[in-house]
Amino acid sequence: MKEKSVNLKETFKKFDESWSPKVVAELNDYQFKVAWFEGEFVWHDHSETDEAFLVLEGHILIHLESETVSLSEGELYIVKKGLRHKPEAPVKSKVLLFEPKGVINTGNEQSDLQAENDIWI
Amino acid sequence: MKEKSVNLKETFKKFDESWSPKVVAELNDYQFKVAWFEGEFVWHDHSETDEAFLVLEGHILIHLESETVSLSEGELYIVKKGLRHKPEAPVKSKVLLFEPKGVINTGNEQSDLQAENDIWI
Repeated sequence: MKEKSVNLKETFKKFDESWSPKVVAELNDYQFKVAWFEGEFVWHDHSETDEAFLVLEGHILIHLESETVSLSEGELYIVKKGLRHKPEAPVKSKVLLFEPKGVINTGNEQSDLQAENDIWI
Repeated sequence: MKEKSVNLKETFKKFDESWSPKVVAELNDYQFKVAWFEGEFVWHDHSETDEAFLVLEGHILIHLESETVSLSEGELYIVKKGLRHKPEAPVKSKVLLFEPKGVINTGNEQSDLQAENDIWI
């Protein structure tokens, strides 16, 4: 798996839980992860790293303290290190995440939405 | 530009040259780049880093010494550090690359196909 090509949309047939990123590939000490987004996530930040969001299907919002970024299919956005943000998906959406290995989905926040980390699919 | 969302397919309306990656976003000391692939590139390797290829539209081949990887739309592949590879595109294709800032498209190879680096679009 780790050395083969990955059909990103196919990976979403293997799991259904929202806000539960699954690793699909590693690049140096970074990971590509796929995740279903649906409804509202929690406000949080990652004090050590930027984080990339690429919408593969659907539509998501990234709420920042100063604005809300709206992302449709094929749109990429980088949340800068330390910036508080709250993802939201008005419709269940397929998202590709990219960030260093070890990043926790809820960042520095205590939340029931914290997902187990480093789970490959 | 550097803090806004990027519509990946729209960026391809802004340039036409093949094998000439353009930076669309930075994440820590890494860059997302878009590139047109068409025809054959040169055999090369990157001795310092892995390199990610995600096909946004079209179809590409990544020739390795041991096999050829075929990638269609929505497929992701990581060429591991130091592995010699030759990209090829039977049809002109839109590709998203991800790698550390400073990586040269032709790696350690001398070639006329070496593109100017760190060009934003």
